[in-house]
Amino acid sequence: MNDTTVNGAELLLITALNAGVEVCFANPGTTELTLVKALDRNPAMRSILCLFEGVCSGAADGYARMGGKPALTLSHLGPGFANSLANLHNAKRANTPVINIIGDHPDWHLPHDAPLTSDIEALANSVSALTTRVDTVANIPKMFLEAYHAAVKPPGQVATLIFPADLQAQEQLWVKRLPIVEPERSVVNDERIEVAGSVLQSKSDVVLLLGDHALSERGQCAAARICAGTGARAIVETFIKRMERGGIVPDFPRLPYFPDQALNALGGANLLLVGAKNPVSFFGYPDYPSQLVTVDKVLTVANANENCEAALDALADLVGAPAFSQAVVPENNITGLGPLNTKMVGEILAASLPENAGVVVEGASCGYPFYTASGSAPSHTIMTTTGGAIGQGPPCATGAAICAPDRLIVNLQSDGSALYTAQALWTQAREGLTVKTLVTSNRRYGILQEELHRSGVSEMGMSMKALTSLDNPAIDWVGLATGYGVHARRVETGEDLLAALEDSFEEPGPELIELCLP
Amino acid sequence: MNDTTVNGAELLLITALNAGVEVCFANPGTTELTLVKALDRNPAMRSILCLFEGVCSGAADGYARMGGKPALTLSHLGPGFANSLANLHNAKRANTPVINIIGDHPDWHLPHDAPLTSDIEALANSVSALTTRVDTVANIPKMFLEAYHAAVKPPGQVATLIFPADLQAQEQLWVKRLPIVEPERSVVNDERIEVAGSVLQSKSDVVLLLGDHALSERGQCAAARICAGTGARAIVETFIKRMERGGIVPDFPRLPYFPDQALNALGGANLLLVGAKNPVSFFGYPDYPSQLVTVDKVLTVANANENCEAALDALADLVGAPAFSQAVVPENNITGLGPLNTKMVGEILAASLPENAGVVVEGASCGYPFYTASGSAPSHTIMTTTGGAIGQGPPCATGAAICAPDRLIVNLQSDGSALYTAQALWTQAREGLTVKTLVTSNRRYGILQEELHRSGVSEMGMSMKALTSLDNPAIDWVGLATGYGVHARRVETGEDLLAALEDSFEEPGPELIELCLP
Repeated sequence: MNDTTVNGAELLLITALNAGVEVCFANPGTTELTLVKALDRNPAMRSILCLFEGVCSGAADGYARMGGKPALTLSHLGPGFANSLANLHNAKRANTPVINIIGDHPDWHLPHDAPLTSDIEALANSVSALTTRVDTVANIPKMFLEAYHAAVKPPGQVATLIFPADLQAQEQLWVKRLPIVEPERSVVNDERIEVAGSVLQSKSDVVLLLGDHALSERGQCAAARICAGTGARAIVETFIKRMERGGIVPDFPRLPYFPDQALNALGGANLLLVGAKNPVSFFGYPDYPSQLVTVDKVLTVANANENCEAALDALADLVGAPAFSQAVVPENNITGLGPLNTKMVGEILAASLPENAGVVVEGASCGYPFYTASGSAPSHTIMTTTGGAIGQGPPCATGAAICAPDRLIVNLQSDGSALYTAQALWTQAREGLTVKTLVTSNRRYGILQEELHRSGVSEMGMSMKALTSLDNPAIDWVGLATGYGVHARRVETGEDLLAALEDSFEEPGPELIELCLP
Repeated sequence: MNDTTVNGAELLLITALNAGVEVCFANPGTTELTLVKALDRNPAMRSILCLFEGVCSGAADGYARMGGKPALTLSHLGPGFANSLANLHNAKRANTPVINIIGDHPDWHLPHDAPLTSDIEALANSVSALTTRVDTVANIPKMFLEAYHAAVKPPGQVATLIFPADLQAQEQLWVKRLPIVEPERSVVNDERIEVAGSVLQSKSDVVLLLGDHALSERGQCAAARICAGTGARAIVETFIKRMERGGIVPDFPRLPYFPDQALNALGGANLLLVGAKNPVSFFGYPDYPSQLVTVDKVLTVANANENCEAALDALADLVGAPAFSQAVVPENNITGLGPLNTKMVGEILAASLPENAGVVVEGASCGYPFYTASGSAPSHTIMTTTGGAIGQGPPCATGAAICAPDRLIVNLQSDGSALYTAQALWTQAREGLTVKTLVTSNRRYGILQEELHRSGVSEMGMSMKALTSLDNPAIDWVGLATGYGVHARRVETGEDLLAALEDSFEEPGPELIELCLP
């Protein structure tokens, strides 16, 4: 390399940095080593090693949810990239911008079907809005920016760039810097706002279903104005990409997971969708419709790719809603102590949260109880799993902490899911991230046992028990966390949990607290 | 359900049991619960919970390598199945029979794009020789047997059956039992044997490259006869699906990993392939050809799907080779003790192995040193990673132990790879498997640092170090294993390792020994 040339790997990094991409969650192999060398020469791109690609992709998801901009993932050919698919599925379902860089064999090596050769495009296409393959070094800035623009296209998408090893190393004269288009959400036209306004004014039971960035503070406050002005209700969609909650933010209920409960919560109302999709049952149950509300009762006010906040403001003004005023927030009550239960965990965490925390929630057991309690907590940010692929929480919390090092990140985390990507703890230790992992250890796939129960099983047989229980042996979370270099403790009562959180939330750095639940 | 009907899930299990499939490595979700219930009523199908789908698929690979017959994996829709892809890639590259069962939404639920919906076929096709979707319950026996026959087609393949949840539950009258075709390897015709014989008799430097079941005891002994009769050499292919070694089996060298070393080992010889492919460089390096031996110097005696053992016997007879006689085996020497190094680990393990052990080897650091030493060990079985997707060892050892509960299974395992699928330890604990995991803890991706070194890097910069080192913090393997319920210890010297192995190999059940290497 001389002064006027760079190699392909550097050209990619420089282009990414120019576009404002600053973090790379990586698990490289031999076909990515030129990129690794280039990272050495471009330290502005922070590279973070994850012990498993599913941590890389989940961290990129959490980073983008927290910061609104994409990170890179760096994976080793098809089989390495395959490990990142589950959390990329979650990112896709969250509409999160993520840019995957995948090394590959040189073109001339591919026909020889070396052991690691596989159909990378097929894997990438399954989660990506755009999948491309670097064809010449001169094209790298153009191709990277195509991926970047696809990723940041509102509300956010997964984009994948396959980068053959030989082109990473090939030298190229500097190429002209290409323009970067800042993403902008399109504005909802007046007509749609007017139609929504007439629904609000003519129908007696209307629900605003809020999703994506309608769950910002501004969006929720505007929704509260509409409710106050029209008697409508607002409900938060089941799976939350990112939501501001607590403090002055109004306390809207969250759409339940099971279809019977969701139908009950919706109560046959007319639905106005703002950043949310028409709710679909998570699974297909014989006794329930897939689509929970019939099309004739649903109106889309704003899609997630449109400016939901402005649409809500405009709608509030149109219906002559009063100015926003904060509702009276109930006292943050802990209704009981003693041996831990899920309600108590939710209440204690909500009562212990400092201002401006981020809470990454994965899992059925404690997710809803915490949500119920957290309306009266100080202002905080919630993110939940979105695509149903488990193992999302620990990586997502890791990425969120990388993005927002000044915020306390809590990962309220089911045990079964945590076991998918517990390797994230190591990255938290290595990077010194202030992530407090609260593992709700009930030693079972609780949701499956509940589904069995709901399907009429009164007593589980041997295989049902074996395949839905996590006991025999129970996971020793203190041992596991210690193995990854994260300090850990175990609590069994509410009193101990209160003390542990007070203590832990004071200290920087990661910690894991195992919550022993019945 | 009444006496004359079964549901789809039971029909599948009964068909599988009739075909001799007896084990299901599972991580089910809601769309697989009818199968879970059916497992309760069909206990002959042993169901084994794994904490992560990559453990299921790796275990199915190990089970089939050890027993020669397929197990089932059971995965939860696309995102769950995606987690199994890396080890299915390894199974595909090993030519191992595996049958994946993936639950899916009912047909009528798919168009609604519920959160877990994804393109399962695209993922499955990337590793499967056959991917089908159950269309009617009546077709289940036919469709399962198609998958079974695809899987067991010599030398073995991955087959995938997608099974919608509603069809699992649908009732069906008993259907006629369908015939099961036992797989048979086709016989190599005389002409090819004669051409090979003439190469052996006319060329001065001939190498028999042995792979797949040519690495059985019979195959290797026949190869030794050919070498004795003709002056040819035999070399074992780099990645070993399954190989008998030690005891009376001749001690053939293994083809090195790096292309320069492999070219050196081959030395320009004429190649006779028996169950092996023409060797291809693992990665494409600018200075080396992809295909290590030009086509004109290569002759295929038998493909992996053909009867390699019979072909070798016939070839030995044709060239008038002498009867097999065991070579003089060098004493099993431990050439030094003190602080552990990779050579010492290989020698100590080879010297400590009991008769009839299985050794699953993953990782560059200790794999070749052990291979070098193990020729003089008692009779044992070796399996290595085959497709380059890391995280293969612990699951493979788990599956091998399920298949052969009376054999001691050793998993000689690199640390970086082990961190991909350490969850396998829990299944080992739960099932009480006699798997002894020897983690060679050098706290780095050694192969990447070696590649950097080979590419001219004399001093690693910050990103190179960060992305190839596993220190800061070092993994505490004793803590990690204890977390999963597996007893563990740490050794630092050869003396301690000898004592630990003597002690550990006496005891049933799993154990992890962390080998602290420089």
